[in-house]
Amino acid sequence: MPQFEAGTFDCIVIGAGHAGAEAAYAAAKMGASTLVLTMNLDMIAFMPCNPSLGGPAKGIVVREIDALGGVMAKVIDKTHIQMRLLNTGKGPAVRALRAQADKVLYQQEMKRILEEQPNLTLRQAVVERLIVEDDEVKGVVTQIGAIFRAKTVIITTGTFLRGEVIIGDLKYSSGPNNQMPSIKLADHLKELGLQTVRFKTGTPPRINSNTIDYSKTEIQPGDDVPRSFSYETTEFIMDQLPCWLTYTTPETHEIINENLHLSPMYSGMIKGKGPSYCPSIEDKIVRFADKSRHQIFLEPEGRNTREVYVQGLSTSLPEHIQHRLIASVPGLEKAEMMRAGYAIEYDSVIATQLWPTLETKKIKNLYTAGQINGTSGYEEAAAQGLMAGINAARNVLGKDEVVLARSDAYIGVLVDDLVTKGTSEPYRLLTSRAEYRLLLRHDNADMRLTEIGYQIGMISEERHERFIAKKAQIDAEIDHLRKTSVKPTEEVQAIIAEAGGTALREPMKAADLLKRPEMKYSELRKVVPPLEEINEEVAEQVEIFIKYEGYIEKSMQQVERMKKMENKRIPEHIDYDAISGIAKEAKANLKAVQPLSIAQASRISGVNPADISILLVYIEQGKIAKVSG
Amino acid sequence: MPQFEAGTFDCIVIGAGHAGAEAAYAAAKMGASTLVLTMNLDMIAFMPCNPSLGGPAKGIVVREIDALGGVMAKVIDKTHIQMRLLNTGKGPAVRALRAQADKVLYQQEMKRILEEQPNLTLRQAVVERLIVEDDEVKGVVTQIGAIFRAKTVIITTGTFLRGEVIIGDLKYSSGPNNQMPSIKLADHLKELGLQTVRFKTGTPPRINSNTIDYSKTEIQPGDDVPRSFSYETTEFIMDQLPCWLTYTTPETHEIINENLHLSPMYSGMIKGKGPSYCPSIEDKIVRFADKSRHQIFLEPEGRNTREVYVQGLSTSLPEHIQHRLIASVPGLEKAEMMRAGYAIEYDSVIATQLWPTLETKKIKNLYTAGQINGTSGYEEAAAQGLMAGINAARNVLGKDEVVLARSDAYIGVLVDDLVTKGTSEPYRLLTSRAEYRLLLRHDNADMRLTEIGYQIGMISEERHERFIAKKAQIDAEIDHLRKTSVKPTEEVQAIIAEAGGTALREPMKAADLLKRPEMKYSELRKVVPPLEEINEEVAEQVEIFIKYEGYIEKSMQQVERMKKMENKRIPEHIDYDAISGIAKEAKANLKAVQPLSIAQASRISGVNPADISILLVYIEQGKIAKVSG
Repeated sequence: MPQFEAGTFDCIVIGAGHAGAEAAYAAAKMGASTLVLTMNLDMIAFMPCNPSLGGPAKGIVVREIDALGGVMAKVIDKTHIQMRLLNTGKGPAVRALRAQADKVLYQQEMKRILEEQPNLTLRQAVVERLIVEDDEVKGVVTQIGAIFRAKTVIITTGTFLRGEVIIGDLKYSSGPNNQMPSIKLADHLKELGLQTVRFKTGTPPRINSNTIDYSKTEIQPGDDVPRSFSYETTEFIMDQLPCWLTYTTPETHEIINENLHLSPMYSGMIKGKGPSYCPSIEDKIVRFADKSRHQIFLEPEGRNTREVYVQGLSTSLPEHIQHRLIASVPGLEKAEMMRAGYAIEYDSVIATQLWPTLETKKIKNLYTAGQINGTSGYEEAAAQGLMAGINAARNVLGKDEVVLARSDAYIGVLVDDLVTKGTSEPYRLLTSRAEYRLLLRHDNADMRLTEIGYQIGMISEERHERFIAKKAQIDAEIDHLRKTSVKPTEEVQAIIAEAGGTALREPMKAADLLKRPEMKYSELRKVVPPLEEINEEVAEQVEIFIKYEGYIEKSMQQVERMKKMENKRIPEHIDYDAISGIAKEAKANLKAVQPLSIAQASRISGVNPADISILLVYIEQGKIAKVSG
Repeated sequence: MPQFEAGTFDCIVIGAGHAGAEAAYAAAKMGASTLVLTMNLDMIAFMPCNPSLGGPAKGIVVREIDALGGVMAKVIDKTHIQMRLLNTGKGPAVRALRAQADKVLYQQEMKRILEEQPNLTLRQAVVERLIVEDDEVKGVVTQIGAIFRAKTVIITTGTFLRGEVIIGDLKYSSGPNNQMPSIKLADHLKELGLQTVRFKTGTPPRINSNTIDYSKTEIQPGDDVPRSFSYETTEFIMDQLPCWLTYTTPETHEIINENLHLSPMYSGMIKGKGPSYCPSIEDKIVRFADKSRHQIFLEPEGRNTREVYVQGLSTSLPEHIQHRLIASVPGLEKAEMMRAGYAIEYDSVIATQLWPTLETKKIKNLYTAGQINGTSGYEEAAAQGLMAGINAARNVLGKDEVVLARSDAYIGVLVDDLVTKGTSEPYRLLTSRAEYRLLLRHDNADMRLTEIGYQIGMISEERHERFIAKKAQIDAEIDHLRKTSVKPTEEVQAIIAEAGGTALREPMKAADLLKRPEMKYSELRKVVPPLEEINEEVAEQVEIFIKYEGYIEKSMQQVERMKKMENKRIPEHIDYDAISGIAKEAKANLKAVQPLSIAQASRISGVNPADISILLVYIEQGKIAKVSG
């Protein structure tokens, strides 16, 4: 094939799904000239599975992406059909926003933003090879022989690498929705020595809304309160569409049990590991055989379509069984299936081959981000895209890398988990994966990350100023509440009584009164008015900070301790074989992961505290063996 | 592959492009239970080439589709970004509407309408085979073994049958925009004995609006007057976007001439015949070497995208040459290419294998419509889809076929040309293809076709009543003008003088006065007010009818003569070999096309008037040879 030079960029992003879009936006915003190459410009930021963003942990990630100056939050704020704050009755650590997206509008808005972004070129093209010289990536080659050169390349190919759709006992080469899979690039990455593993994910059927009997389902409306993912959003969509809740029935379970032999999951047809936290309906029924029913949410795919996503009914059973499954669910007796559910298997890169910047260890300046790294979910993909984009741009600009700590953000947890532990199945972020849950809240994403976003040029001056002002207000008001005494006046006692608390016997600091579980700041404010007018966001921070001060402090101490471990760097070319006493498995894993710090080493699977102690002693004694390269 | 029964329908439509959408809508609306199978539900009614509908002849087709109760006109009325009536300065026969579409909105709206349509099921699936028994189609089989049975099947696969993209000296298997081509179905149609031919079409590059210097181009705004394709539209989009006009330069021509050896058109890489009426820029520059420049229209692809279609620059030159071409056009010096232009080759069915209903002669109840039949253009595709959908439904319902005459509609011309003459290149409708241009006007599509649409159940009672009332008003007002004398009053003379006409010497019938070329009905109305309040549409019909009465009558007489010939049916099993005197070539072509009437026979290429005379004598003498079957 004759090749020709087609342009030179700082950064090339392969793919324009949720990871690719975020990566390209970040790199370009930071000043790197960026090229996005995608197979089909009409499919930018397409949602091949559920038409929604957010939810536990994931919703916090979207807030974090925004706090760092990323784009996902802004797009969903503009294109959702429903927004809900989950777990409002529970503690602040588990609250999270969840939005239903208008699938087509989401794509359009993301495409428009990328089109408008300076330093960013969008181009429809199929990448087949990388140009790699001396273990350093130099560019890419497309299907038609165009050579694009770049200092950095980010691969965000999602589930397209050697994609195979599986349904019943059939398996055929395909990306999602009968799109072309990416086979040549998959072969090429193997040639380059990147190790891959087969993962599997799946999607439920879609049905036509006009054929649903909603009277047999429960309505699930959005919140009445205007809310947004982005701290920059000022216009709110209040005209929301409801979702609907129904359940599987004993008949559903019977159909599945009877036809389990037809499921590729159980017949051995599917070799790839699927996500246990996002199980298919056949999985759920086998694994939770005692449960008599499972929730089925009916989620509209947009305002201008009648297509409805059947959340909870992900399946790769043959199509005719899917018809029967659907018909067994109350309200769906006559539902018309528009797309059948299916499973898809694809190559994903073993993420322990990556540095915490998401750069591959094997090939310099080459990054991978998103589902290709073994994750599931649009938010996880976008988060990685953002970090890869930031680090690729920093790399080009000759600046330090940006790696978030596990105590900074769920994004830090995600990336650290991936590159330190790898994953044996599609990785999903869960609240339980974070050790500092109380610090990594939905409400304080900006407090945690805006400063970083600003420092690296992702956050505007104006937004940063607003952030500084907000922070000052919070600090001032906390200080104010700590200093102000509340006297047992009639009004105060009435407020306390109303909240169900014990009457004051003597004056008490306002902050201490607020610490009482039953006391709400919205009430306390009536007798201790803020120093200056404050908005709800500030009030929320003040309240949470004071109420959870003890827990937060404890967490912070843990973080401090961990930070010390994080700061104990492991020399780059350490020879683990030369350290006697470390267990065999631990040694193998340490060598594979090449942790950068003692803290990271301690999180590697198979590495025990005893191994860490030996490692610590070894490093502190300065006994670094042969330094090569 | 294990197969399973997946459902039974009256009509199955394969594909949901412009032909498929229209076919399915019509069949379902007429009461046939209809299934649409399409590879990707997100690509329904996608415009892979120019983001526009209408223009000369084609715009009239869209009006005709609407007059017959089809859907295309309604969708574009709701989703355009610009609307213009072309040739307003010329005679009414060549006037035509042209709209720029918002590509994504158009798709969404068409999908929504199909989703809402009763009797219509949309399903994402890839069809690989037909079920044919005793030369009769019985259903289809999908990639995953689902058998859908149906009384009729309509194939509308566009350019996907064995699609191959060609750019420079590269050729690879692909549908438009890197979508999957349809290879198995193409093979299967050949197995079934349908003869196909390779055709070729192409598309220009797309560029980013933000990188265009519009100051070097001429603005092309939409009309200020609200207009619509559909007679049912009542809300008009007045907030329009402009297009922009620029030109190729001597540099453009030089680049092409220098690189012609790299063009697959000239290197022999492209075997398929392309559309001469929609030539690539390299074609234009070779064929019209004396022209120093060609028009380039910059057309936005929608309101929410910055992607711009570069009309006039269709090319399959290598990508790096395309960059240079673009940069050589004023205003595009720094334009960023988002998609490269390319040519695509595909199998198309030789249309003389079809009856005028678009049913295949070889396989009963199987229809083909759209680009698969060798046409180019969304409008031509939709028109065929509509007629195939109508005829499939009529077939199922046991009713007579609906075949439009050449004097009824451009759609009649299109279908007759296709099935009678076939086409040696992608067929495009042109005003010049119609012999009764003055009858087939933009303004009277409803007069010509509403009654047919109503009779077959495609037009609602309410709309039909409105149509009847309109017709009555027109007739009454024409009669009124014929009967009313205009006296040479001062006011009358002033109006005549203002129009530049000769003063009246004596009273004159209003109709005769209106026949004067300079006299406008809008002026005449002032002195001869209509019997009752009439709207602009009625006034236009009255004016055109009276002004062109002589020409229209002449055309009608020709139509009458032709109708006699159309009514001279040729017996179905005529043995042309038994007729002596008919020339050899004529005989071969008559046998291939199997014309239904003497009129159709006379239009077959190679059939001369002498052959027709012999055929007429033969039939009228009742000398029908051996009737077989």
